[in-house]
Amino acid sequence: MAQVPEVYVLGGYQTDFARNWSKEKKHFVAMMREAVLGALDETKIEPGDIEVAHTGNFAAELYSKQGHLGAFFLEIDPAFSGLPTARHEAACASGSIAILAASAEIEAHRYDLACVVGVEQMKTVGAGEGGDFLGTAAWYELEAKGIEFPFPKLFGKLGDEYDKRYGLKDEHLAEISTINYANGKLNPNAQTRTWYMNYEHAMSRDEFNGSIGGRIHISDCSQVTDGAAAVLLASPDYAKKWAKRMGVPLESVPRIKGWGHNTARMRFEDKVAESKGAEYVLPHVRSTVTSAMKRAGIADVSQIDSIETHDCFTTSEYMAIDHFGLTAPGESWKAIEAGDIALGGKTPINPSGGLIGAGHPVGATGVRQVLDSVKQVKGEAGDYQVEGAKNVQTLNIGGSGTTSVSFVVGT
Amino acid sequence: MAQVPEVYVLGGYQTDFARNWSKEKKHFVAMMREAVLGALDETKIEPGDIEVAHTGNFAAELYSKQGHLGAFFLEIDPAFSGLPTARHEAACASGSIAILAASAEIEAHRYDLACVVGVEQMKTVGAGEGGDFLGTAAWYELEAKGIEFPFPKLFGKLGDEYDKRYGLKDEHLAEISTINYANGKLNPNAQTRTWYMNYEHAMSRDEFNGSIGGRIHISDCSQVTDGAAAVLLASPDYAKKWAKRMGVPLESVPRIKGWGHNTARMRFEDKVAESKGAEYVLPHVRSTVTSAMKRAGIADVSQIDSIETHDCFTTSEYMAIDHFGLTAPGESWKAIEAGDIALGGKTPINPSGGLIGAGHPVGATGVRQVLDSVKQVKGEAGDYQVEGAKNVQTLNIGGSGTTSVSFVVGT
Repeated sequence: MAQVPEVYVLGGYQTDFARNWSKEKKHFVAMMREAVLGALDETKIEPGDIEVAHTGNFAAELYSKQGHLGAFFLEIDPAFSGLPTARHEAACASGSIAILAASAEIEAHRYDLACVVGVEQMKTVGAGEGGDFLGTAAWYELEAKGIEFPFPKLFGKLGDEYDKRYGLKDEHLAEISTINYANGKLNPNAQTRTWYMNYEHAMSRDEFNGSIGGRIHISDCSQVTDGAAAVLLASPDYAKKWAKRMGVPLESVPRIKGWGHNTARMRFEDKVAESKGAEYVLPHVRSTVTSAMKRAGIADVSQIDSIETHDCFTTSEYMAIDHFGLTAPGESWKAIEAGDIALGGKTPINPSGGLIGAGHPVGATGVRQVLDSVKQVKGEAGDYQVEGAKNVQTLNIGGSGTTSVSFVVGT
Repeated sequence: MAQVPEVYVLGGYQTDFARNWSKEKKHFVAMMREAVLGALDETKIEPGDIEVAHTGNFAAELYSKQGHLGAFFLEIDPAFSGLPTARHEAACASGSIAILAASAEIEAHRYDLACVVGVEQMKTVGAGEGGDFLGTAAWYELEAKGIEFPFPKLFGKLGDEYDKRYGLKDEHLAEISTINYANGKLNPNAQTRTWYMNYEHAMSRDEFNGSIGGRIHISDCSQVTDGAAAVLLASPDYAKKWAKRMGVPLESVPRIKGWGHNTARMRFEDKVAESKGAEYVLPHVRSTVTSAMKRAGIADVSQIDSIETHDCFTTSEYMAIDHFGLTAPGESWKAIEAGDIALGGKTPINPSGGLIGAGHPVGATGVRQVLDSVKQVKGEAGDYQVEGAKNVQTLNIGGSGTTSVSFVVGT
């Protein structure tokens, strides 16, 4: 697998995921605007420099009765008149798919500077309706229709599968939840930064932490979030000029060093049937992770300093731990017990708080993960900084392990 | 503007746009399957050769309560297990956006063979609800909410704008309709091939051809269609091997010679305000057309042998005529009166029948346009063949002239 041509990430911006833009009666374009103008401000780049724009969004058709989200870039700034735009979607991996599309165009020498914004406004509807909308990320007709909160149930089944193959304890899932909430408290943009949550609460089974899908309790779930995140991707030519203008060495500018992208069958039961007897529960997720490493010229996870992974539920992070190779398959609990995944551990996972702690505005998540990786490798992650992080890897998942995308971001 | 690296279009397949898959109680994945397997069969390529797959789809979230359409590729053939997939959307330009994303990945040397399928299942709902869904291609809240059939009204306004600036006669729109329906009769996959329509009917204003949006009557409208179209895009390396295996010279394999891509503001009134006093009513559409020509190394439309354009309404084709440069701005009627755009004319437009005659399954249209262009330059368009076509250009539009994509396909 050849190393990838250089695509630089000059910077970006994330909206405060604690905000309820729906309650503020603001359109999602207001979120896009704040994220994009914030990214331009942070990088000291003029709007007119942007040559192409990509939006990652899951389902504005349902949440906001609106399609054609690429075009809303033009509502952000008059300088964007005529700008080529597009929207990309792969359920909860939409943000990463948008980055893949943008970076491909840069690698193809179509453009030198691309803006990618991931956005989702989810609080336009109540919890039940929103849960139903999320069901369209699975095979709706077969896995979600008429089911209350289908996704916690699907990821509950992922836990069941681990339990069946290797054993799985609630205590380890509770620890994952605890770490993500704790990290979220260190992140000034995290949705849950002021929330109350600890290990005892995550382990409790009272009415404040009810089951909503088999072994999945409220504390195991990521959040329903209004939010946007933007990153600016550049060709080596543009990055060189920009670095010079900013007075920083090009070597200090983060790059996408590798990427992985795979799809598994839509239905969870088809995934499990396919992986029967295989080394990994979700082998295509494993391929995505290892492809990204290979393209980055990285041998294994020991060269990864931190991970921003998809913890839509604690079970998905539990799965990520062994799929990244932090432990042998089925032994994710060992990394948890050893303290490896906590801040200060060997390979901190989700120092940002992840989808559980920071929040999960679906289409924004993949972009937010890359942005947080950029902050880490620049040493600008503040209270959730992983000391000396040089390479950070993301894992963004759409559906019940259906579409996987991973990036290695480093300097 | 540099000429584009070579991306070959090895072939493809279109479903019969006259079929009502909804009435057949078939899922859209059945359409995708027929299109993809049809494309593989036509090109004698094994499913396992496909390295990446892209879906163009506008709004399955609304029509079929289903997102994550890239992943449905895996339901087509077991050989697709693990295949990287993505869905791309820009309203009615979704199919072209998917081709742009796929060709960028090939140009970036990520993959050698990509499958792109455009798909839309629209007959799952009635005309009124479907018209409302199409409103999400415009700024729904401001331009479509509570309006019956918002899009005919928006493109009626495009006609009004032409009328205001240059004058516009119903007779010329009726002629556009007549030609598209006539061409559709020659296309074995056209939705309207058995329908009754002629100039007198298009000019009639009786109850069989009522107004549904100002000057837009039923005969001015494209169709509500269930359909899919697939194309196989290849790198020069793959195309060379394939041509050798097929016993054809590489020079005879169609290529994407150039592309254009621009966006205008979402609201139609903002577009018109921006173009006040400008040479063209929709200047960003004009840029898209000329960029594609420039990238193809083509000076002007005189080197284009035929056009497959977006005639969601007769007014959009009327606009395309001068925006392609077939006439001076505002004088599209001259090309119509001269017979230039009819089959056998100087630059036949929509020999396939276009969106009016062939049908308009929204997400499939951009792919169908490229596929028909491929058929033309290979001399395989049967009864709707443009004699000696070497270069065919497409124009695919999302919203009321919002997202424009154009390809020059040639050998």
